Amino acid sequence: MKTIRRLDLDDARRLIAGAAIRAQQIGVPMCIAVTDESGQLIAFERMEGGKVTSTTIAIDKAFTAAAAKKATHDYGSASQPGAPAYGINSAIGGRLMVVGGGLPVLFEDEVVGGVGISSGTPAQDQDVAEAAIAHWRRQD
Amino acid sequence: MKTIRRLDLDDARRLIAGAAIRAQQIGVPMCIAVTDESGQLIAFERMEGGKVTSTTIAIDKAFTAAAAKKATHDYGSASQPGAPAYGINSAIGGRLMVVGGGLPVLFEDEVVGGVGISSGTPAQDQDVAEAAIAHWRRQD
Amino acid sequence: MKTIRRLDLDDARRLIAGAAIRAQQIGVPMCIAVTDESGQLIAFERMEGGKVTSTTIAIDKAFTAAAAKKATHDYGSASQPGAPAYGINSAIGGRLMVVGGGLPVLFEDEVVGGVGISSGTPAQDQDVAEAAIAHWRRQD
Amino acid sequence: MKTIRRLDLDDARRLIAGAAIRAQQIGVPMCIAVTDESGQLIAFERMEGGKVTSTTIAIDKAFTAAAAKKATHDYGSASQPGAPAYGINSAIGGRLMVVGGGLPVLFEDEVVGGVGISSGTPAQDQDVAEAAIAHWRRQD
Repeated sequence: MKTIRRLDLDDARRLIAGAAIRAQQIGVPMCIAVTDESGQLIAFERMEGGKVTSTTIAIDKAFTAAAAKKATHDYGSASQPGAPAYGINSAIGGRLMVVGGGLPVLFEDEVVGGVGISSGTPAQDQDVAEAAIAHWRRQD
Repeated sequence: MKTIRRLDLDDARRLIAGAAIRAQQIGVPMCIAVTDESGQLIAFERMEGGKVTSTTIAIDKAFTAAAAKKATHDYGSASQPGAPAYGINSAIGGRLMVVGGGLPVLFEDEVVGGVGISSGTPAQDQDVAEAAIAHWRRQD
Repeated sequence: MKTIRRLDLDDARRLIAGAAIRAQQIGVPMCIAVTDESGQLIAFERMEGGKVTSTTIAIDKAFTAAAAKKATHDYGSASQPGAPAYGINSAIGGRLMVVGGGLPVLFEDEVVGGVGISSGTPAQDQDVAEAAIAHWRRQD
Repeated sequence: MKTIRRLDLDDARRLIAGAAIRAQQIGVPMCIAVTDESGQLIAFERMEGGKVTSTTIAIDKAFTAAAAKKATHDYGSASQPGAPAYGINSAIGGRLMVVGGGLPVLFEDEVVGGVGISSGTPAQDQDVAEAAIAHWRRQD
């Protein structure tokens, strides 16, 4: 038997709130997903104007970041043509996302969840994911 | 009618044991999957700290290696942009893995199963898959 | 943030060992799957003679039992024609199993994982799943 | 390591020929699938006038019969409302077929493959599957 820590629903709401604040600042309505450390969805919000396709993409970015313990943009560079993880983007039925915007959420060096953002450019999505975590840390 | 040879459960356990020994040596907890020569799962273990995403990826690497009779890293080079098998990574619902870490298991020049490793870098995964087979051969 | 308990790999191995002992007693080789409390696979074995179809079915029974915190045979009665959960068997891409043989694993009244058995009749599968948990408790 | 027997391509062709003869006798053009003992497709023919939907259904009937070592019509009775395997029809992404027309092919009491027939009524499909196996045995 072992003990692990994971985000609870309050954490997920704070991450979403932090993401929404940043999304409004940059003027890009986003889909925002938060998963637990196993990649299972805790909470999701599609802001007014967020893209329908981004619903799945945000959820899968959060899933990837949490369950693979790795930022999705790191998979982006590792999976370029010629790079070692080339072709991994279609793994797990295409759920493994290699586009920026998915970040693991760390607590005392452990992955406790994941946040996934989609609707902007990958750089915007990643920026909003970072802002979500920074907001969550400030309140923690 | 024809006769084929395939790994049995004891073989699968030895392959997993060999993989786990090497994974511990290099300090990377792995997901370890062994399939029969048809790509059907015989045994699987997720070591403590192995990634959740790697569960499916390890199983699919073993499936690919056994059922396609080819190391997954060989698909990696064959599927680069401009190469003949470009785009094959998304075949079979994304199960065809082109990332290193999946190896066919050979016995007297016949494929009798597959081993799939995931959680490290592709090079680490491949190294552990090779160690699994070497361990299995030594005990055979 | 919250703290949860889950099965580790040693627990999974003990559950598999317990299932295999009972399967041998009743003379039915089984597919045996153990998941963590989120329904993610920890370990799996297909005994010699276990059915290929039962690979997926055992994994999905363990997934259902752990992630829905409910024995799969309880879904069986709840999903009969006219009953409230009628039709739920095809949910989650068909992964939600309503056939006996999947049991949640409880520790101090919390679900910490799931065990899924397949290859026999549903009654045999359930019997082996119960034996797996009983064996695990004795050694705990 | 273990040794198993399975149908080869000549066997598959004979099974298809036997099915086609019977299908012509009863005036129902059929989809005819033959898998190996692991449920992997060896050969398939859609007779002129066979149904497009029956392509997948015939393949999945042969898969089920071989990989579960059981006639699909036996699953039909075992999975009626109130029966123990109720709800199993949606397992494995819906590939587990409980409609008649899938039969395991036995050789010296071992399952060596499966035949799946679809386009007629389930009774016609099962009749043609039986004729396929009888034809194959006669030539064997």
